[in-house]
Amino acid sequence: MSGARATVVGAGLGGSLLAVYLARAGYQVRLCERRSDPRRHGMQAGRSINLALSTRGIHALAGVGLADAVLADALPMRGRMIHSVSGRQAFQPYGTERGQAIRSVSRGGLNLALVEAAGREPGVKVEFDCKCVDVDPDAAAITVENTVDGRRGTVEADFVVGADGAFSRVRGRLQHLDRFDYSQSYLEHGYKELTIPPAGSNGFALEPNALHIWPRGGFMMIALPNRDGSFTCTLFWPFSGPGGFEALRDETDVRRFFQTWFPDAVPLMPDLAGDFFRNPVSSLVTVRCRPWHHRGKVVLLGDACHAVVPFYGQGANAAFEDCVAVDEALSRHAGNLEAAFADYDARRRVHVNVLADLALRNFVEMRDRTASRVFLARKGLERLLHRLFPRLFVPLYTMATFTRMPYGEAVQRARRQWRWVVVLAALGVVATIVLAIALAGAVIP
Amino acid sequence: MSGARATVVGAGLGGSLLAVYLARAGYQVRLCERRSDPRRHGMQAGRSINLALSTRGIHALAGVGLADAVLADALPMRGRMIHSVSGRQAFQPYGTERGQAIRSVSRGGLNLALVEAAGREPGVKVEFDCKCVDVDPDAAAITVENTVDGRRGTVEADFVVGADGAFSRVRGRLQHLDRFDYSQSYLEHGYKELTIPPAGSNGFALEPNALHIWPRGGFMMIALPNRDGSFTCTLFWPFSGPGGFEALRDETDVRRFFQTWFPDAVPLMPDLAGDFFRNPVSSLVTVRCRPWHHRGKVVLLGDACHAVVPFYGQGANAAFEDCVAVDEALSRHAGNLEAAFADYDARRRVHVNVLADLALRNFVEMRDRTASRVFLARKGLERLLHRLFPRLFVPLYTMATFTRMPYGEAVQRARRQWRWVVVLAALGVVATIVLAIALAGAVIP
Repeated sequence: MSGARATVVGAGLGGSLLAVYLARAGYQVRLCERRSDPRRHGMQAGRSINLALSTRGIHALAGVGLADAVLADALPMRGRMIHSVSGRQAFQPYGTERGQAIRSVSRGGLNLALVEAAGREPGVKVEFDCKCVDVDPDAAAITVENTVDGRRGTVEADFVVGADGAFSRVRGRLQHLDRFDYSQSYLEHGYKELTIPPAGSNGFALEPNALHIWPRGGFMMIALPNRDGSFTCTLFWPFSGPGGFEALRDETDVRRFFQTWFPDAVPLMPDLAGDFFRNPVSSLVTVRCRPWHHRGKVVLLGDACHAVVPFYGQGANAAFEDCVAVDEALSRHAGNLEAAFADYDARRRVHVNVLADLALRNFVEMRDRTASRVFLARKGLERLLHRLFPRLFVPLYTMATFTRMPYGEAVQRARRQWRWVVVLAALGVVATIVLAIALAGAVIP
Repeated sequence: MSGARATVVGAGLGGSLLAVYLARAGYQVRLCERRSDPRRHGMQAGRSINLALSTRGIHALAGVGLADAVLADALPMRGRMIHSVSGRQAFQPYGTERGQAIRSVSRGGLNLALVEAAGREPGVKVEFDCKCVDVDPDAAAITVENTVDGRRGTVEADFVVGADGAFSRVRGRLQHLDRFDYSQSYLEHGYKELTIPPAGSNGFALEPNALHIWPRGGFMMIALPNRDGSFTCTLFWPFSGPGGFEALRDETDVRRFFQTWFPDAVPLMPDLAGDFFRNPVSSLVTVRCRPWHHRGKVVLLGDACHAVVPFYGQGANAAFEDCVAVDEALSRHAGNLEAAFADYDARRRVHVNVLADLALRNFVEMRDRTASRVFLARKGLERLLHRLFPRLFVPLYTMATFTRMPYGEAVQRARRQWRWVVVLAALGVVATIVLAIALAGAVIP
């Protein structure tokens, strides 16, 4: 439906990319963002986990020719580097093939690149300092307030895209419609960003081509490399209780805590206590809702309809994949917005719900089991099986990260694969016993 | 903390009763209600399922001397009357002891009685046409709008009680605070109210002392008696699809549907099609959230924090029980609102979550299994065991309905009881076999 007008609320990662997709498909797009223009004011930083781009996200960027520029600024992370309390480091490759890596990018830098790309599209009008304060879902109209001068106005269109994040105003409005299922659920853990500045002979204080993890059972720290040689560290820890953020009151507490649990990181963090008390503790939420659309007038995307915790490295990748899914649904149902949005919802929601569960489960895996021998043995067996039967056995992480197979199918396939491994192993044991008996019968007269 | 000021938002069942409790405890209460004064305008009717009062609710009413007056207007329902498609009726008693019954009351009438009771308290100021449009949770202040003249004002107090139902504005405001877990989840089924007018020799067209159920597998109709001889019927049926409300377009469709599934009810409903097209289809929601309070300034109650589907007959009873729980917590922590609300939350939330699950499960039981032989046999066994061991074995429904044991404990006890039944039955079988062998040994030489 070339020429139809779309209002995209939120110029974050998903909203900006979708604006580009819609413009390329011939829509007239107005992209409204509450924050100030990052092209003039710089991106807000200080509490965003670095981003790990993988196949789904890269494919979505490539669809509008943005992948190469983004990847030029990215650092490949080929595996996890596990730091034990004793300071020993152990590397666990992510991929099963040479060259497979997830890409560390700065969330702010990526967002800026996407806003610039949207701004370059003739069909996109980008407006900053433009806060969506109300939505009329039946009219596809939103009320906006200019955050500088406080003036209000109405933006009308043929449809509204809610790409305004986990605390989406657009979704909040849909929530008041009858029979809208919604849930928001927080972890007991919060997170705090810390920094390891550039150092060492190659400019990096740690191995640059890895995602570093300090698994400590009920909590963990991770670090992702940046191009300037620094690492963005994130401490995941309960909010309250004696083992939690609340318990650290002063510099002595902080130093003691880090010296006990992350002794190898302390020398690399010269401004540890400063960072610790300057940066906020942020919360981690999982959002689910149904439906993702309203009568061809409103559609939701990314965190607005499926915020996930960051532990599978798929939140932004899934939002980018949404853009492709919306674009494909619009072209499949040329002109019929209602059918397109219902189709997008029906194909996609079930898979992103699976991702939400994977992300919650992976928190336990990362903080707890990456250090265990059973886990390492299982991962080793997965890699071996994949090397022996590259098409028959593909580890779940590989399918989620290095393919575009829908998440739900990946989980089902992973279950089937393990079932076969167990069956074949059992048959192998039986065959061995039968063979041994037969041999014994042949040897012993 | 005598003299402290409370604003209660919502003069429904829970809010009105709590206002009475708070006034008796010495608080200055302002009770704000969006609707008009039912003492002057009558209660809004037309889409409320009749209410089944049971022990918890009656105990809460008795705590402020209101039980007798309410029960004087109630009709005892001693069991379920199951209507088969053939028109056969089968009675299943609810209680295990003589005289145990749930009480059918009109929701509107009960609400009116509670509003009148609140109005009689010197410490309560009741305001109608008074809509809460915003809440400042940290200041315990609410912004109200007079729905008649549109004027706005602020009501300040020491704490705010959100008793404003499943779509609570107060809870909606808490939902935007950090780390507030929330979920709303709708059934695929909606409900529509219908009427069986007075008739028959005793004024009732059906047995008056029963809750009538027409279980039909995926859907059902129920009917509760009213004092005037009429029955309030409720049809629970999917919203959409060929077997759902959407599919019935005209009077012929409606007559055909009822003639097929509820043939014995059709002659009793002279204005069936009129009722059907006049009354709306309403939805059924389960609401859960956490926490139920904010810093001693805000506390939630009833449907505002735990709306449940109506199939265990406990929604209003649980809201009334909340009032007792708040009252007890306030007196336990004399003066310390924050400690009192946290205590109320900690003791009560887990049990009401169990109730939400019970209510969802009981929908399947009512519409599906009340007609099955296995179900009837199980119910019969439950009654027998309770009669033989009245203190050792108490059916779950009896604990939920005829005791005040916390819901979660009732469910755990019910599980333990059945485990013992299985163990003892197994021992019985073993003992019988041993005995048979011993006897055989004695008889056969």
